Amino acid sequence: MTDTFEITPRNRVKRSHQRARYDKEAVFGIVDSSPMCHVGYAIDGQPYVTPTLAWREGETVFWHGSSASRMLRAVRGGIPVCLTFTHFDGLVLARSAFHHSANYRVAMLFGRAAPLTDAAAKDAALAVMMEGLTPGRIARLRPNTAQELKATTVVAMDIEDAVAKIRSGPPIDDDEDIRDADCWVGVLPRREVWGTPEPERNIAHDAPKLGEQICRT
Amino acid sequence: MTDTFEITPRNRVKRSHQRARYDKEAVFGIVDSSPMCHVGYAIDGQPYVTPTLAWREGETVFWHGSSASRMLRAVRGGIPVCLTFTHFDGLVLARSAFHHSANYRVAMLFGRAAPLTDAAAKDAALAVMMEGLTPGRIARLRPNTAQELKATTVVAMDIEDAVAKIRSGPPIDDDEDIRDADCWVGVLPRREVWGTPEPERNIAHDAPKLGEQICRT
Repeated sequence: MTDTFEITPRNRVKRSHQRARYDKEAVFGIVDSSPMCHVGYAIDGQPYVTPTLAWREGETVFWHGSSASRMLRAVRGGIPVCLTFTHFDGLVLARSAFHHSANYRVAMLFGRAAPLTDAAAKDAALAVMMEGLTPGRIARLRPNTAQELKATTVVAMDIEDAVAKIRSGPPIDDDEDIRDADCWVGVLPRREVWGTPEPERNIAHDAPKLGEQICRT
Repeated sequence: MTDTFEITPRNRVKRSHQRARYDKEAVFGIVDSSPMCHVGYAIDGQPYVTPTLAWREGETVFWHGSSASRMLRAVRGGIPVCLTFTHFDGLVLARSAFHHSANYRVAMLFGRAAPLTDAAAKDAALAVMMEGLTPGRIARLRPNTAQELKATTVVAMDIEDAVAKIRSGPPIDDDEDIRDADCWVGVLPRREVWGTPEPERNIAHDAPKLGEQICRT
């Protein structure tokens, strides 16, 4: 296993290539800190983009849903898929409109998905997802039934190639604007946060605590 | 102009169709509250999903970037595009693993993008974007130069059809689990927030204030 993804026509960053990272540490860091990604696939040239929860083991990414899902029915056939994990980290307010920008961390993963067919393998994969989102919780839940596993599709995608693209830091302005401009300059950071848990039924020993690392952020 | 989008094979929700909304109020509400979307397009069957800032006027959605951007060069040719705007609103913790879910608001928009070719039209569209993100700021910035407008591609997509899909509220459990389960049940809300502005250069009269409605949330 190498430390970087091969650069291919598909993952090579063309614009702002200095922001590109092909090393697995960068790509996996973004994937592992995002509970959610966007799945892109095309049917007869028509693209669809669907958000979904996803999780990683090694060089394989998993996602799941109802066996009736259009997205899962399409991608489980093995068509090319693009998974994009995005953190929108802030707006970058420069001295000119042109140099305004966004701070972000994006990982794009390419490959083909295949369904897990074995019920025990599905069950194990779903347990990994649950454990990643809400550590310790699955031990308090009843096991999945055979019918529930049948109604659930889990797909696995071995990552063929991938790339991260990252922008961070303050704006980069033109020299003459630095001299002349008369405006606030900097970054408006943006992030996703967990709010106060909203119990439908509260059991003290099991309640998620605000500020606790309940889930990946 | 009708109040709802026509239901087509492309936008019809197949799974959990009770969560689908075809009315423009629902779709536009999600679009207008999301500074960012994910653009999906395919080249020779290979899908790509790219995050970008986007904004709406009437039934047209705009986005922009470097004229060298692969995404913009691809979509400006008029190929089919899917724009997906997503709010991940929370994790739904049920009494069984199977009934765990996510709360979300998603809008999927379908159409074909065309570039704005007139420099004044580009300039006006970019001003609408700036005004939406940081109201009042553009008046303090110098005008865009001809060269900057040339280096910027702005595309417009008339929405052909669209759909919103929304889940909210607590988990929906099976009766036997409601009787038997021994775990916390409820929703872990998640949201995007703006953090404390990070000035590179501070001008008091123009500085964004924390908590102020600087940008769309």
